[in-house]
Amino acid sequence: MKILALDSSAVSASAAVLEDDKLLGEFFINTRQTHSQTLMPMVQQVLLQTKTALEEIDVFAVSAGPGSFTGVRIGTACVKGMAFAQEKPCMGVSALEAMAYPLSMLSGIVCAVMDARCGQVYHGLFRVNGHTVERLCDDCAVAIDDLAQTLRPYAGETIYLVGDGAKLCDKAEAFAPLQTRLTAEHLQYQRAVGVAQCALWHLKQGEPAVTAEQLAPIYLRLPQAERELKKKLEGMK
Amino acid sequence: MKILALDSSAVSASAAVLEDDKLLGEFFINTRQTHSQTLMPMVQQVLLQTKTALEEIDVFAVSAGPGSFTGVRIGTACVKGMAFAQEKPCMGVSALEAMAYPLSMLSGIVCAVMDARCGQVYHGLFRVNGHTVERLCDDCAVAIDDLAQTLRPYAGETIYLVGDGAKLCDKAEAFAPLQTRLTAEHLQYQRAVGVAQCALWHLKQGEPAVTAEQLAPIYLRLPQAERELKKKLEGMK
Repeated sequence: MKILALDSSAVSASAAVLEDDKLLGEFFINTRQTHSQTLMPMVQQVLLQTKTALEEIDVFAVSAGPGSFTGVRIGTACVKGMAFAQEKPCMGVSALEAMAYPLSMLSGIVCAVMDARCGQVYHGLFRVNGHTVERLCDDCAVAIDDLAQTLRPYAGETIYLVGDGAKLCDKAEAFAPLQTRLTAEHLQYQRAVGVAQCALWHLKQGEPAVTAEQLAPIYLRLPQAERELKKKLEGMK
Repeated sequence: MKILALDSSAVSASAAVLEDDKLLGEFFINTRQTHSQTLMPMVQQVLLQTKTALEEIDVFAVSAGPGSFTGVRIGTACVKGMAFAQEKPCMGVSALEAMAYPLSMLSGIVCAVMDARCGQVYHGLFRVNGHTVERLCDDCAVAIDDLAQTLRPYAGETIYLVGDGAKLCDKAEAFAPLQTRLTAEHLQYQRAVGVAQCALWHLKQGEPAVTAEQLAPIYLRLPQAERELKKKLEGMK
């Protein structure tokens, strides 16, 4: 089975092709650029250089969120477009869960954490044992101090921080007693290979793929504009 | 400091741009293709998508071997050409050592191993402790059984196998008592990010870079044609 996976849920962006469990190719960038300009050319290049025709792709996978609202929309829209044109199924996976898969060879707790702005972080917790990934909680958005509290019961284990919120947490005072470890710089960001691995795992568990029409972003919070409107409307009552 | 790094020492090929310790972008493929056709377009794309001009590159790094004779020659030639044209320094690093750097976040022994054909493997041994890489022996080419023997003193530690010879060793009878661990599939192959990280480390230690003219492949054995000629000439004596 060939999976084309995209991630554009944060600052980094990537496209990967997985054939069964083998990574055929991946194009990853981590520069503050507009994903709307870079993502599709990266898809085109990764297909070209791995000599994979779009028709050969069996499933289109994407980090469906949480993350940057615009970034998630761009990735989801790209996948919807390709899957619709090819009449192929889609898998939208958690951007947080996708970060745990490339780290499954570690032993301990993977705390995938993204900067959600406004003093909050999106996070997901996973136990890895050298091979598998086990989800420990639902993805959610909380304050950094609250995340440190959530991690307390795992203080006896090695806690690896991954994601664009990792450094933010690592520096936070509330994290000092936890002795968390940052993952290596080149593995610290969202990557399409993890999206593909995560989608493959869910498919192997028998979870159904969705159609291009059904694929939807996973937003854990309302967009800022809507949050502000809601606040304003509540104030007017 | 910006480093452009290439790897084409085996079946996979990759190009990466590192700025200090941050990976700006990497393009990796692992399909049986001709590196002479794919490597330069990948370099061009990784520069384009990370918006890096060739003029901005401070050091050109390459897996200088051991590995596929043709592959190593292609990578070295590409780097020589770019560095010569830009009048910039080069770093040729061990393809085996370059594989240890992306795994420095693990704890244990990294056994980087490449299929050298003719019943032999190229290997290098490194100790990693979550942060650093310590070389334990010189790179060399030996029979698989002899490598298993070399690894015996480390049997009490976790031994991670990485490289295109990893699966070969993992399956070998002589490796059964060692309880080695294969690294995750997507981290099992030579990658340009490791070449860049390895070059950066050596530069930080004060080791000098070389000129494009001085850069040379590191072959641990004579090419097959030369080995056969030597044998033939010896038989004629």
